[in-house]
Amino acid sequence: MTDNSLEYKAPTEIKSLDVISTYELEKEAEFVIPKGGYDYISGGSGDEFTLRQNTESFNHKGILPRVLADVENPETQTSILGHDIRAPFIMAPIAAHGLAHQTKEAGTARGVAEFGTIMSISAYSGAKFEEIEEGLNGAPRWFQLYMSKDDEINKDIVDEAKADGATAIILTADATLSGNREKDLRNKFVYPFGMPIVSRYLTGTGEKMSLNNIYAQSKQKISPKDVRFLADYSDLPIIIKGIQTAEDALAAIGVGASAIWVSNHGGRQLDGAPGSFDTLESISKAVAKRVPIIFDSGIRRGEHIFKAIASGADIVAIGRPALYGLALGGWKGVHSVFNYFEQDLIRVMQLAGTQTVDAIKHTQLFDMK
Amino acid sequence: MTDNSLEYKAPTEIKSLDVISTYELEKEAEFVIPKGGYDYISGGSGDEFTLRQNTESFNHKGILPRVLADVENPETQTSILGHDIRAPFIMAPIAAHGLAHQTKEAGTARGVAEFGTIMSISAYSGAKFEEIEEGLNGAPRWFQLYMSKDDEINKDIVDEAKADGATAIILTADATLSGNREKDLRNKFVYPFGMPIVSRYLTGTGEKMSLNNIYAQSKQKISPKDVRFLADYSDLPIIIKGIQTAEDALAAIGVGASAIWVSNHGGRQLDGAPGSFDTLESISKAVAKRVPIIFDSGIRRGEHIFKAIASGADIVAIGRPALYGLALGGWKGVHSVFNYFEQDLIRVMQLAGTQTVDAIKHTQLFDMK
Amino acid sequence: MTDNSLEYKAPTEIKSLDVISTYELEKEAEFVIPKGGYDYISGGSGDEFTLRQNTESFNHKGILPRVLADVENPETQTSILGHDIRAPFIMAPIAAHGLAHQTKEAGTARGVAEFGTIMSISAYSGAKFEEIEEGLNGAPRWFQLYMSKDDEINKDIVDEAKADGATAIILTADATLSGNREKDLRNKFVYPFGMPIVSRYLTGTGEKMSLNNIYAQSKQKISPKDVRFLADYSDLPIIIKGIQTAEDALAAIGVGASAIWVSNHGGRQLDGAPGSFDTLESISKAVAKRVPIIFDSGIRRGEHIFKAIASGADIVAIGRPALYGLALGGWKGVHSVFNYFEQDLIRVMQLAGTQTVDAIKHTQLFDMK
Amino acid sequence: MTDNSLEYKAPTEIKSLDVISTYELEKEAEFVIPKGGYDYISGGSGDEFTLRQNTESFNHKGILPRVLADVENPETQTSILGHDIRAPFIMAPIAAHGLAHQTKEAGTARGVAEFGTIMSISAYSGAKFEEIEEGLNGAPRWFQLYMSKDDEINKDIVDEAKADGATAIILTADATLSGNREKDLRNKFVYPFGMPIVSRYLTGTGEKMSLNNIYAQSKQKISPKDVRFLADYSDLPIIIKGIQTAEDALAAIGVGASAIWVSNHGGRQLDGAPGSFDTLESISKAVAKRVPIIFDSGIRRGEHIFKAIASGADIVAIGRPALYGLALGGWKGVHSVFNYFEQDLIRVMQLAGTQTVDAIKHTQLFDMK
Repeated sequence: MTDNSLEYKAPTEIKSLDVISTYELEKEAEFVIPKGGYDYISGGSGDEFTLRQNTESFNHKGILPRVLADVENPETQTSILGHDIRAPFIMAPIAAHGLAHQTKEAGTARGVAEFGTIMSISAYSGAKFEEIEEGLNGAPRWFQLYMSKDDEINKDIVDEAKADGATAIILTADATLSGNREKDLRNKFVYPFGMPIVSRYLTGTGEKMSLNNIYAQSKQKISPKDVRFLADYSDLPIIIKGIQTAEDALAAIGVGASAIWVSNHGGRQLDGAPGSFDTLESISKAVAKRVPIIFDSGIRRGEHIFKAIASGADIVAIGRPALYGLALGGWKGVHSVFNYFEQDLIRVMQLAGTQTVDAIKHTQLFDMK
Repeated sequence: MTDNSLEYKAPTEIKSLDVISTYELEKEAEFVIPKGGYDYISGGSGDEFTLRQNTESFNHKGILPRVLADVENPETQTSILGHDIRAPFIMAPIAAHGLAHQTKEAGTARGVAEFGTIMSISAYSGAKFEEIEEGLNGAPRWFQLYMSKDDEINKDIVDEAKADGATAIILTADATLSGNREKDLRNKFVYPFGMPIVSRYLTGTGEKMSLNNIYAQSKQKISPKDVRFLADYSDLPIIIKGIQTAEDALAAIGVGASAIWVSNHGGRQLDGAPGSFDTLESISKAVAKRVPIIFDSGIRRGEHIFKAIASGADIVAIGRPALYGLALGGWKGVHSVFNYFEQDLIRVMQLAGTQTVDAIKHTQLFDMK
Repeated sequence: MTDNSLEYKAPTEIKSLDVISTYELEKEAEFVIPKGGYDYISGGSGDEFTLRQNTESFNHKGILPRVLADVENPETQTSILGHDIRAPFIMAPIAAHGLAHQTKEAGTARGVAEFGTIMSISAYSGAKFEEIEEGLNGAPRWFQLYMSKDDEINKDIVDEAKADGATAIILTADATLSGNREKDLRNKFVYPFGMPIVSRYLTGTGEKMSLNNIYAQSKQKISPKDVRFLADYSDLPIIIKGIQTAEDALAAIGVGASAIWVSNHGGRQLDGAPGSFDTLESISKAVAKRVPIIFDSGIRRGEHIFKAIASGADIVAIGRPALYGLALGGWKGVHSVFNYFEQDLIRVMQLAGTQTVDAIKHTQLFDMK
Repeated sequence: MTDNSLEYKAPTEIKSLDVISTYELEKEAEFVIPKGGYDYISGGSGDEFTLRQNTESFNHKGILPRVLADVENPETQTSILGHDIRAPFIMAPIAAHGLAHQTKEAGTARGVAEFGTIMSISAYSGAKFEEIEEGLNGAPRWFQLYMSKDDEINKDIVDEAKADGATAIILTADATLSGNREKDLRNKFVYPFGMPIVSRYLTGTGEKMSLNNIYAQSKQKISPKDVRFLADYSDLPIIIKGIQTAEDALAAIGVGASAIWVSNHGGRQLDGAPGSFDTLESISKAVAKRVPIIFDSGIRRGEHIFKAIASGADIVAIGRPALYGLALGGWKGVHSVFNYFEQDLIRVMQLAGTQTVDAIKHTQLFDMK
């Protein structure tokens, strides 16, 4: 993989997918994404204990079917930070979609926009804002920031994101350093293309650079002051992503965060942590509806979306499954994946006797532990 | 499988079986039932987590052997809703027995009737009432209803079931939509024959239709009013099937249900739910003997029957194992399966020191969790 | 196996064994014992869930190493019902040792006697008392009784056992019917030889009879009256074997039992029961040292003996491992197995800082659940 | 292996290692260390239940990522018993490094010394003090003692260790007898070389002797008096190694121990014990900072070091991974392993939001059970 920038051939096919299971998508994606890229996308850190816990922890709570509930055609519409969205899930910020498909983030953006929800644009995007706009075509977007050590550069990046139309800034706070991604180390993985948004603070464009190298050039020493700085400078809602404790949620709200994003970065950062779902309930109790909660890490089924919302999330974010859809079918594949989640969630809502997203929030789960 | 109606060859053999284990029956049945039918019968929804939990959850409670108990020749006779039955188990309602054997529901009915317990006739039966009567030959039967969106049709169906001699109506309330049956989706499974009882409200007979399609034409919006309507119109006991919470049990009783059927539809509907057995004890405490409780989902051994009754069930229902018996031996196979459960239950009763079904109800199980 | 009486060739070799692990003995024994006999000896009932739990339940409690304990050369001697024995374990009663070795119970008896502990003679022995005496050569023995339905025959059997020198009667109370031994059913297993002690109440000698058949001819309806009868008639200590509840232990003591034998019959009777070890602590608390407690089911290591004694047993009994020793090396093999347990127990006692069997009883185990 | 002293060829290569995972090192080491030596080093006792628990028990507690923590370049320096060390881990005492590499303990010592932490020299070293000094080159060292039955010999050994510059005596108290090392028994493992330090109390040098044989010639009857004797005679801090209970920790402190070493000997002594990590928290609460706590058994990742310190350890000790490094790369391999642990710990500290070792101690772990 040392020279993978010379050889990296991302998939190019664009087609709708007949999604039966997102686990199958992962297996199929392994056949079309080059190994270095596939391992980067699918892998976690250390023993991948936390990666596995992310999905397994959903089995710690059970949904009880409710009957005679007078439910028909459940409604999935909801709203978040002023946006009305078609279903209670959005696209999570992920770096380097170009590993999965040659249309890069523009492909994902189009699938998300045509479905009717919010796109999160990563600071480690391989596409420029204007390229992504081709896919979004005016649809809502949030911008996820990895800060530079230099706040003047941060201002420039925020300015650019605002100019592009971002309606919120997601500050990723759990990745001030790369997790222990053993697969990437074994593959000697480097990005096969540059990252135009953050290249202004990198020595180089990002191309042929390792994740460790790029993270090291970003800001490690993130503190509540940075939240204040971003809120004041951007005048946009600031969402703090990577929260796993009630203490951090309250601290973030205390310095002006407009939303909390409960996540363990898809099991890619600190291994030996509980599944993200196992941390959600206590955080949501502490937050007590002062700000909305977005949840990710491990969502693979409609049941998972339901359980997260019943445990206090307002919406969830879809990560890897969308990228597998992108790899297998470009923007149409992404669209198919979002449709799948919607259909699966509707079925679960019907069988659980819940007519609306609000009704899910009032559902009591069964403790399986 | 697209043209499976042309090719579907259900087994035809009629013979007694030497049943050593119902798990073995399942393996053997896989060899004789065409794949689409076998997957439909044996499969569950989603990850099949709940399907597996249904049997595994019995291991959450242990039966303690009781000695010096002065027991000999335990007696399995009991009664339910006015019927004296030979043993505390009946036939569960299952759709489309014709997938397992060419004698369809008539085969099952004869095996059940010759054993001496109650047959449940599914609204999604592939046989007509008069065909099933050939097997039942006057033996007791309950009718399980999937409601039409049109109550006039529901009245017609209830009238027909009453005319056929049904002594109770089972309203299945947990299947207002098909569960996420991935195997059926992969197989593109459609029923190879029609469903005469509900065909009056289908566009088509049911033949070459998928489960999703058929459920969609049934009534989703089931509410307590439907229980009242059925009780008033039929003047028969109404049993609400698919109860997994104390709240729903009490609600059903409140609107006139004559019995509660605790079930998660054999793990075929909402995945990510606990094993049905894990929900039984709290429901039975809430019901507090106001109405009888029927239990299903996961019964494969005499121990399971014992544990369910010791946890509050009055009787249990046998589903898939009976259909495997039907596939392997027609009515004689069904008869063999029911005999097996009786013998296995008698053994467990003897070793647990319980002379009667009532004594089982007073047994304290050991908490294994 | 239908004609296995014609062909059954039990092992004949006599040699000392280098026992590293009793699990290995089981694997090695499988090569020398004919399949029907091996499955009969090693198998359990039903799913073999309880059989597995018997050994796995020892992992629910941990032994904590204790240091600076001033211990050297731990002493394993103890006494039970008036007998001084070399180590806190005896031979469990097992039927039909002739399945494992042509020297039958005489071989086991000699190994046990030369080691220096108590032999339990099963009523379902394939050898006569006088044959077993050749191995025992005056060493202590207890007699285990499966009662006849006819008390006059029971008196005769007890008379014979007393005449042979039995110093206690073990009444097996948990096997009034055969457990669900699926392996035996598949093998159509029948005993290849008769059972001279109980043949007086069988139709036939036991030869070519199944376990079900033999149990059916024994007494099912065992009650406290039988304990009284045996105690009064025999004037020997009566030990009730197969106790798994505090209630039954107290009931047995109330009608004159001189000792309680906590056992689930090695997982051969009621499946779906907890591991025998998991039931021990609460029983021993209820018994409160009024009578001694013997424990079996799952003992494979010195750690297991230690944990059982620390949980309230006075001694334990060794079953299958001794029969594997018999199969592999005749009386010398049995002797090797008993020596192995002694050495392993001494090591555990040293590392746990316990000088005597009494010190083990005062050890607090660590709760691993 | 009977003649393994004639044939034993330990590895000789000296090179730096690219350590991605210590689990991989173990697999790679299996290819270069002769089987008898590899099994001796890597194996545990009995079922290896406790060996597995040692690493698995770390999953009973989760580290929660902490964000906005204002952390950059975490500092790993700490001090223990008067020594400033580069990171909160030292080399554990292990016998017979010559099994892993021909440079024996001198190789390990150099790797440890160049990294900048403390070497523990085992009484069962295959190298003499002066040979080890060649590697240590003045770096700090502690001496681990297996006592002779003869205190005059113990005095001589202590005198020699002091003369060599040992600044503390580690009294191993949990190995007064060999654990049940089945692999060694199967391999008929004997040491291929002598043990010069303890050879003064052995009949023979240790060469061609089994572990059982050597332990048997050491002192079994260790008591609090021995702690007093060593403290008084040596005038050095005495560390009691092998503590698994609060009671023993308090007893050791009561007779003059200067530190407690929580360990179960890497799962090599008493099997059926909990993972060492599972015992740490209650011990550290009882010790209440009166003396420092050293922890070992199961450390394979930075997360494990973090969790042990967060549960009350002041430092941890590295055992097998260092020996695998030695086998694969001599002193440079050991150095690589220590560097790996430092880097991995720094990453975990950053992601957990902890700037210093002291901050780790104030971290609250998440209960995963």
